[in-house]
Amino acid sequence: MVLILNGPNLNMLGRREPEIYGRTTLEELEELCEAWGAELGLGVVNRQSNYEGQLVEWIQGAEAEDFVGILLNPGALTHYSVALLDAIKSQPLPVVEVHLSNIHAREEFRRHSVTAQAARGIICGFGTLSYRLALLYLAEVLEVG
Amino acid sequence: MVLILNGPNLNMLGRREPEIYGRTTLEELEELCEAWGAELGLGVVNRQSNYEGQLVEWIQGAEAEDFVGILLNPGALTHYSVALLDAIKSQPLPVVEVHLSNIHAREEFRRHSVTAQAARGIICGFGTLSYRLALLYLAEVLEVG
Amino acid sequence: MVLILNGPNLNMLGRREPEIYGRTTLEELEELCEAWGAELGLGVVNRQSNYEGQLVEWIQGAEAEDFVGILLNPGALTHYSVALLDAIKSQPLPVVEVHLSNIHAREEFRRHSVTAQAARGIICGFGTLSYRLALLYLAEVLEVG
Amino acid sequence: MVLILNGPNLNMLGRREPEIYGRTTLEELEELCEAWGAELGLGVVNRQSNYEGQLVEWIQGAEAEDFVGILLNPGALTHYSVALLDAIKSQPLPVVEVHLSNIHAREEFRRHSVTAQAARGIICGFGTLSYRLALLYLAEVLEVG
Amino acid sequence: MVLILNGPNLNMLGRREPEIYGRTTLEELEELCEAWGAELGLGVVNRQSNYEGQLVEWIQGAEAEDFVGILLNPGALTHYSVALLDAIKSQPLPVVEVHLSNIHAREEFRRHSVTAQAARGIICGFGTLSYRLALLYLAEVLEVG
Amino acid sequence: MVLILNGPNLNMLGRREPEIYGRTTLEELEELCEAWGAELGLGVVNRQSNYEGQLVEWIQGAEAEDFVGILLNPGALTHYSVALLDAIKSQPLPVVEVHLSNIHAREEFRRHSVTAQAARGIICGFGTLSYRLALLYLAEVLEVG
Amino acid sequence: MVLILNGPNLNMLGRREPEIYGRTTLEELEELCEAWGAELGLGVVNRQSNYEGQLVEWIQGAEAEDFVGILLNPGALTHYSVALLDAIKSQPLPVVEVHLSNIHAREEFRRHSVTAQAARGIICGFGTLSYRLALLYLAEVLEVG
Amino acid sequence: MVLILNGPNLNMLGRREPEIYGRTTLEELEELCEAWGAELGLGVVNRQSNYEGQLVEWIQGAEAEDFVGILLNPGALTHYSVALLDAIKSQPLPVVEVHLSNIHAREEFRRHSVTAQAARGIICGFGTLSYRLALLYLAEVLEVG
Amino acid sequence: MVLILNGPNLNMLGRREPEIYGRTTLEELEELCEAWGAELGLGVVNRQSNYEGQLVEWIQGAEAEDFVGILLNPGALTHYSVALLDAIKSQPLPVVEVHLSNIHAREEFRRHSVTAQAARGIICGFGTLSYRLALLYLAEVLEVG
Amino acid sequence: MVLILNGPNLNMLGRREPEIYGRTTLEELEELCEAWGAELGLGVVNRQSNYEGQLVEWIQGAEAEDFVGILLNPGALTHYSVALLDAIKSQPLPVVEVHLSNIHAREEFRRHSVTAQAARGIICGFGTLSYRLALLYLAEVLEVG
Amino acid sequence: MVLILNGPNLNMLGRREPEIYGRTTLEELEELCEAWGAELGLGVVNRQSNYEGQLVEWIQGAEAEDFVGILLNPGALTHYSVALLDAIKSQPLPVVEVHLSNIHAREEFRRHSVTAQAARGIICGFGTLSYRLALLYLAEVLEVG
Amino acid sequence: MVLILNGPNLNMLGRREPEIYGRTTLEELEELCEAWGAELGLGVVNRQSNYEGQLVEWIQGAEAEDFVGILLNPGALTHYSVALLDAIKSQPLPVVEVHLSNIHAREEFRRHSVTAQAARGIICGFGTLSYRLALLYLAEVLEVG
Repeated sequence: MVLILNGPNLNMLGRREPEIYGRTTLEELEELCEAWGAELGLGVVNRQSNYEGQLVEWIQGAEAEDFVGILLNPGALTHYSVALLDAIKSQPLPVVEVHLSNIHAREEFRRHSVTAQAARGIICGFGTLSYRLALLYLAEVLEVG
Repeated sequence: MVLILNGPNLNMLGRREPEIYGRTTLEELEELCEAWGAELGLGVVNRQSNYEGQLVEWIQGAEAEDFVGILLNPGALTHYSVALLDAIKSQPLPVVEVHLSNIHAREEFRRHSVTAQAARGIICGFGTLSYRLALLYLAEVLEVG
Repeated sequence: MVLILNGPNLNMLGRREPEIYGRTTLEELEELCEAWGAELGLGVVNRQSNYEGQLVEWIQGAEAEDFVGILLNPGALTHYSVALLDAIKSQPLPVVEVHLSNIHAREEFRRHSVTAQAARGIICGFGTLSYRLALLYLAEVLEVG
Repeated sequence: MVLILNGPNLNMLGRREPEIYGRTTLEELEELCEAWGAELGLGVVNRQSNYEGQLVEWIQGAEAEDFVGILLNPGALTHYSVALLDAIKSQPLPVVEVHLSNIHAREEFRRHSVTAQAARGIICGFGTLSYRLALLYLAEVLEVG
Repeated sequence: MVLILNGPNLNMLGRREPEIYGRTTLEELEELCEAWGAELGLGVVNRQSNYEGQLVEWIQGAEAEDFVGILLNPGALTHYSVALLDAIKSQPLPVVEVHLSNIHAREEFRRHSVTAQAARGIICGFGTLSYRLALLYLAEVLEVG
Repeated sequence: MVLILNGPNLNMLGRREPEIYGRTTLEELEELCEAWGAELGLGVVNRQSNYEGQLVEWIQGAEAEDFVGILLNPGALTHYSVALLDAIKSQPLPVVEVHLSNIHAREEFRRHSVTAQAARGIICGFGTLSYRLALLYLAEVLEVG
Repeated sequence: MVLILNGPNLNMLGRREPEIYGRTTLEELEELCEAWGAELGLGVVNRQSNYEGQLVEWIQGAEAEDFVGILLNPGALTHYSVALLDAIKSQPLPVVEVHLSNIHAREEFRRHSVTAQAARGIICGFGTLSYRLALLYLAEVLEVG
Repeated sequence: MVLILNGPNLNMLGRREPEIYGRTTLEELEELCEAWGAELGLGVVNRQSNYEGQLVEWIQGAEAEDFVGILLNPGALTHYSVALLDAIKSQPLPVVEVHLSNIHAREEFRRHSVTAQAARGIICGFGTLSYRLALLYLAEVLEVG
Repeated sequence: MVLILNGPNLNMLGRREPEIYGRTTLEELEELCEAWGAELGLGVVNRQSNYEGQLVEWIQGAEAEDFVGILLNPGALTHYSVALLDAIKSQPLPVVEVHLSNIHAREEFRRHSVTAQAARGIICGFGTLSYRLALLYLAEVLEVG
Repeated sequence: MVLILNGPNLNMLGRREPEIYGRTTLEELEELCEAWGAELGLGVVNRQSNYEGQLVEWIQGAEAEDFVGILLNPGALTHYSVALLDAIKSQPLPVVEVHLSNIHAREEFRRHSVTAQAARGIICGFGTLSYRLALLYLAEVLEVG
Repeated sequence: MVLILNGPNLNMLGRREPEIYGRTTLEELEELCEAWGAELGLGVVNRQSNYEGQLVEWIQGAEAEDFVGILLNPGALTHYSVALLDAIKSQPLPVVEVHLSNIHAREEFRRHSVTAQAARGIICGFGTLSYRLALLYLAEVLEVG
Repeated sequence: MVLILNGPNLNMLGRREPEIYGRTTLEELEELCEAWGAELGLGVVNRQSNYEGQLVEWIQGAEAEDFVGILLNPGALTHYSVALLDAIKSQPLPVVEVHLSNIHAREEFRRHSVTAQAARGIICGFGTLSYRLALLYLAEVLEVG
């Protein structure tokens, strides 16, 4: 089972700045992830929170909940949440950071990621396909691990 | 109806550093806002939270709750919360940012506002009157819009 | 009597970048201010200059001219004029800084205000209504003072 | 009674990067604090949260709960939480900031403390003994105060 | 046909700092890409150069060579080559930037990407799988386009 | 008619630091410009001021005075005058910025131009020929426009 | 004879971001330069390279090839090539730096020129006319020299 | 004859922030300077302006007016006026920069002087005696020169 | 035996800025340390120097003098002495850095510690109790070691 | 009695970079100071040290030695010695900082003074006359005090 | 055999800025190196390129060409070529970086070396003797290794 | 005779961080230098001090002591001692700066040298051989001089 975590404002997907984030809603994205997971033989659980503290706790507890990997879109917290960074470091599961938009092509303050320092890697700029690629990676790597 | 949101530590108003923030308590400020709203024919709902996540969700949901405008004092989150910035951007209502103190006359790190980038404008330095001016603006603009 | 000072390039209002500053001309804005002042029982005198030195002297002399408050839009001088900052400090009247556009949503170099360090507060982003709100504040505060 | 607050990820103590934070768990640390408090004639109450908002509220309410001092390990929030800084300022109790690791010997972004600006002082680098020293200080100072 | 471009020092793969870049050689990586491409029904052409100028020209000419997408690992040029950035902008094909290592977890000067500003997106940190994910994305998107 | 504006200290030309600015005086430069203009069938009017405010007003009023283009050497104001920048933006005529010396080869603080952000382009480093080239450009472009 | 050097990506002229660089192709620009040169009695040789090394060598060798001046558009290398800067310094011919676009009106990283430190001067923002003005300057100055 | 120039806001002396600038008015200071000059056998002429342009012109013209030295308090212009810096450079008389307050002990932005780069030296922090010391220096040096 | 080292200006304790450093003199502090050491069964030797070189040598030689730990208040050297940092690194004893005042609540340049990078930890802000806590730590840890 | 302190390398005066510091030796300067002091009825004691620690101690002890003022040229320590800054703060005598050269006209790192933050004022750029002016100030002010 | 690599513009040696780089030509320097190598029993092969890519490949291939050490003068690439840095890291031979001039005594941008991070060490400022010292080091160390 | 000066903490050589500085002690290094000097027909005198002031004085007095050159390892003072920089400038002998470790491969604050600005050149990263190379250079150059 893979845990998919979406951070602040991703519940607004499809309605929020669609020229940047696209028109797919969070519900649709979550269904896509379930479908993509199914194709890959990977159960997925979707969660979203606008609270840094909640995301921290889901990451901390993921191993105890028997997840084997985490797909994380930290939203705006990407750029300043040392707490999320520390949460990723505090547990052993592979974490893949994803973004719908290409953060390197946006405002200066969005071009670096605090949280990616502790992630396995980062996939950004491919819209909802960013999630699919992350799931593919997790499917590959968890098979091996 | 206008949604008035007060961020972290504004529940301590009147007790916290009164030489900076004045002696009016949050309860008194909320009553003032209701009275000022009434004068302007503007219903107001007052909410306060110390949680970034809660403020994000109130902003996101404001339109669905049938509010027509938001008056936001983000408190300390003004200076680092990209999540609040994104929440403001994720919805269509006009947001007016207010501060009791003049942030330009305080410590260096309080002189820029992350959240004001997405607000309609900012009013700061006039104590509780900052709120009254914001309500006046919303009354003007909502009539027009 | 309140002194309204408009700084460099505000005489171009209505013609200059209307998508940022709107289509109201300076003359119309000055009439609006007179009308708003009248409503509030506040005499207003409108002046504009493209000279830092002139603005400095109007501010210095405002008390001697029997003004009781100053509404100042320093235009481009906002961002570098220490001379205006010192002029505000050199006299006892309350000064309210206003801007038509939201300076926090523009180029990096427009996001901080040198002059606002000495002003009572700042109101920006509300087009011509920024002036109205400032007058309202002065009416309130001068009654009290 | 002294309030001991542990911030984000400190519930992972003993499991999280033990080469930095040591092998004592939070439960063991809390028991140690109770024992050390008892030795010093100081009741202690232990709380932990991964939510900035929760920590803000515990600090705000500490005096009303009849605590006489606060020992705070803000975890990752040390480095960016102006909200915690303001919460400390908003109440009169002495606050001692502690860290298990020596923040001056870690990554650049961990070397300055936003929250310590408002604390009485800071003790860092001594593992769990940082807490003991902080309790000793509070015992000394509260006797006097 | 997709053009795969590897920049400076990627010809040293497998021998160069294997703890960072892994033990797969460039030849093996190129074969893997061909195999992955074949699985996806995607022809791939592999090229490597240590010359910025050569990479610029391959990118410029890709459309004329009938490629439909580009997978680019700019190597060290990622961090300073405005010429590569401009080359990507000068042509219409989708470009996916990949890195074997997680650039966000390395030295400060490797944490930002000049070239990614013009790419569709970036995939980094997954070793050779970074390339596979990029091919998958191109397969998806080219089908659609 | 083209308006040629020389800013602060250009009236000292020929006497001021001749190793940088040459030995031609302002009067001689103005005559040269008239002669060059005549060759190009371009009337020119020369003005010089040491006052930012005066330069702002000449730029603002140029169109109303029936000028069709502006050649501007802002002198020292190049490096800090946002007021001049805004004046250029506030009117529709093409503005060409010129400098006698190569500002890129001088002190650090002279290497960037605030005013050039709004100009059509910049010509610098060619002594009095910088003016001739600017006139040539204006002659070309005004013919076309 | 004057040597005209165009740097990286200028071979894409007319096709690359025409809203910035215009619709003239490099071939057309080169023909224009030949024609303009002819008018001025100035032979011109056009060369373009995407290789920093090649440009360095053309500049180094220009005097030996009997050129009497260099017109250089370093393209993206403008902003980081110390090697080009040193090449210009290593030889005695006058070098005029040109740009089609106004680099002062673009992204922050394009606003300063490393190479212009050693050039005679810089002409930017006038489209293909930038080249014509540079030729005019060289014609003037070479006559004199 | 020595020219004494006081810049922006120095006409407010005695009334403006007396805890920083003292209680002597400009008129009194000017009389003191005349008296001190007389003691030293040095005629002095006092001028004050709030206009950068006016100060620039007085400095430019000082030699032609038969002054032999300049005592300059640039006020707020100290910190940003490149135009004043250039004016000092454009003429041959010795210029002594003075300040009433110790600029090194004030806000960060007041701690460096743009204009002092071209002055003979700087005297600051001694209240009105700063002027006396400057006159003494000029008396000494002019005797010699 | 523990070596207590006080750096530059700590010999002025009690007389120097008592609102920051308190009214206890160095002699009194040294006696307090001896008394606190005695309570803990810890011999202490007090030394003070205003010379960086002397402090460096005391630290270097501490082990050879049979000390088992060092309590160091580097005074002003905290903020720039790489020599002290290297001295701490050059020897094996545990070093505890202490400060009377809370350096995080003072001027910007006092908020980071160069020397603490090599110390075991830092205790600051508790007046003379900072020393007592440091001794307590050394007593604890030396028992163990 | 006034204490004159010269810091590092001032013993090399006359030999060291005479184009910057002049040809007067330290011995000659000291005699000049004695003579100037005598004229002013001011006893002076000259001391020089290349040791920060020695200068710190002379400043600390000046009052006990019955000096009534200090004239300090901190030499290179001007730019980094927080220890000297604290020494000045730790005692009540007026301190005047002097420099032979104009530090504002030299390398960037010499343009700000750490020590001047605590001095009464600063006099720099007048060669040996800087010392004479400082003595004059002390004579004036000590008479009054 | 030792490989001596000279980077961009070193082929201009003797002609380029001789006051900085001396009057020895590259050919003479290469002969000197051969002679110095012969004295030390060290075969040397001299190569020069103005292409970053070529230098990268010579470094990568040096071991395969049976060289046992590399002497590298990266010229201007010293300051920005991460590609050269990575090339040095990608192979096992000792690399000694040399410069003719003292880079610490030149323009700010020449004072740090990107490439030296991966070199064994750096020798700069001794003209052609820098090369001789580097050869001596290689002779010493290769004997041992 | 050549003067060899070792700065702060170099007396700890062999014991201090041997993985960085090696296992040779200062005594052994000094003997090596004497032996290497002897080979080169160069008398050497070894001195070490942890005091900036002492090093300054040895450098100042070197010529008077009949030394003909100085080999200086400033240790930690490399990075901040403007006093050492000025001492080097204040005397005419050639100074060669050496370091055992490669300062370019260490912490950010060790990557630039204040003192090397005035040295002839710098040799670093070759362990004790750095000293030998420096002696060789001095032998070469003193022969010539």
